[in-house]
Amino acid sequence: MNTPNSLRTLGILGGMGPLATVDFMQKIIALTPAEEDQQHIPLIVHSVPQIPDRSSAIIANTDAPFLPMLEGLRQLERCGVEAVLIPCNTAHFWHERLSQATHLPILHIVDAVTHALAQQQITPAACMLLATRGTRQAGIYQRANNAMCSGFQLPNEAEQAQVDNMIHFVKQGKLSLAQQSGAALINTLRQKGVQRVVLACTELPLAMEPTQHPDYFINATLALAQSAVHFALQQQTGTVV
Amino acid sequence: MNTPNSLRTLGILGGMGPLATVDFMQKIIALTPAEEDQQHIPLIVHSVPQIPDRSSAIIANTDAPFLPMLEGLRQLERCGVEAVLIPCNTAHFWHERLSQATHLPILHIVDAVTHALAQQQITPAACMLLATRGTRQAGIYQRANNAMCSGFQLPNEAEQAQVDNMIHFVKQGKLSLAQQSGAALINTLRQKGVQRVVLACTELPLAMEPTQHPDYFINATLALAQSAVHFALQQQTGTVV
Repeated sequence: MNTPNSLRTLGILGGMGPLATVDFMQKIIALTPAEEDQQHIPLIVHSVPQIPDRSSAIIANTDAPFLPMLEGLRQLERCGVEAVLIPCNTAHFWHERLSQATHLPILHIVDAVTHALAQQQITPAACMLLATRGTRQAGIYQRANNAMCSGFQLPNEAEQAQVDNMIHFVKQGKLSLAQQSGAALINTLRQKGVQRVVLACTELPLAMEPTQHPDYFINATLALAQSAVHFALQQQTGTVV
Repeated sequence: MNTPNSLRTLGILGGMGPLATVDFMQKIIALTPAEEDQQHIPLIVHSVPQIPDRSSAIIANTDAPFLPMLEGLRQLERCGVEAVLIPCNTAHFWHERLSQATHLPILHIVDAVTHALAQQQITPAACMLLATRGTRQAGIYQRANNAMCSGFQLPNEAEQAQVDNMIHFVKQGKLSLAQQSGAALINTLRQKGVQRVVLACTELPLAMEPTQHPDYFINATLALAQSAVHFALQQQTGTVV
């Protein structure tokens, strides 16, 4: 798709969950330098929340989310998008297979976080990684050859249970409950001496961002939005794809 | 598209502007009774803000937005959506022609507002309609045979200029400026004795919702979201289109 001002069109494979997709879109809009509508980045968004739960699938060792995600990817292809973003950390378990099935680049959320950590000169050992059980079990952040994302602190069982609850509250739209829970967990982690927290599930910013200064977080949603905006704007100064 | 729980898939012809589209999605999500992702409504969102400015086109008597909107509509058709929503009041100037060009129902934002007024037993004479100059000039709310939307109070030139500024601030992402301006205008209108305000531009809720009790507003974005959710859930109990 050619847009008048040569911004690249982005495809969002979303709905995992729906509010996280909206949060991701909001971050893209906020990061885009624009004085009027037409300077904003064109987005095609496949927000189809019927994709089976990713974390449960990883834990149960089933492949149920793959084909529905592939169907969404095909729709984005047909709409002429130039890159794909998946605002769901756990879904990145299928990133490699989805990438192999398309000519489109799918920007990886862990690459985006790696970049954010490097830019801010933060070492993983100083951070606690908060994520779904699926993301943890699959080691999505512990990919090979990625020293920047090895060695994160991980929550204990009680803390993980609080993370699970927060995610569930957000998916139910119970944001004030999620934020109460988020504030309590941050309090616990601060007392334990945790210096920073990686929000490695896209529901978590909705629970935790309002409770604390943004510097306390490495926000994976924000990092992916930064990569997305960088990609979309690139065409203005670079070559036309 | 068949979704596991028989929710109808909605298409959003958005990006006019981008934040208004996100606000509309957020309202759909908040209005949907859901305990988990899979119970939320599937949405395909064409948020392509390069569609030329609707208000300017009406005032200049050009047709520039029509073909780009039609292109977006075609993409939504190809994605298998079952109804289309346009979260931009001014764009409804082209509603009839777009409807004639597709087999899909395009729910009309003025019908949604009419329904909201009727439900709350509010007469137009008690309300001031805040909208773009294009919406006003085209008489989008003063459609034939719609007594519920005839006879609104309209802002004077100074008030309209404040509305224009607010819309512009939202499109620039300057939400705190927009909200300051929104609070000032509400103050003026309250002093004039305006009982209620129809937010008939989808940027306006972002400027005005946080400044006042929601009962003061007839929010066209919210009304359209209510119609959208009603349509999407209908299939669970009613007939399949």
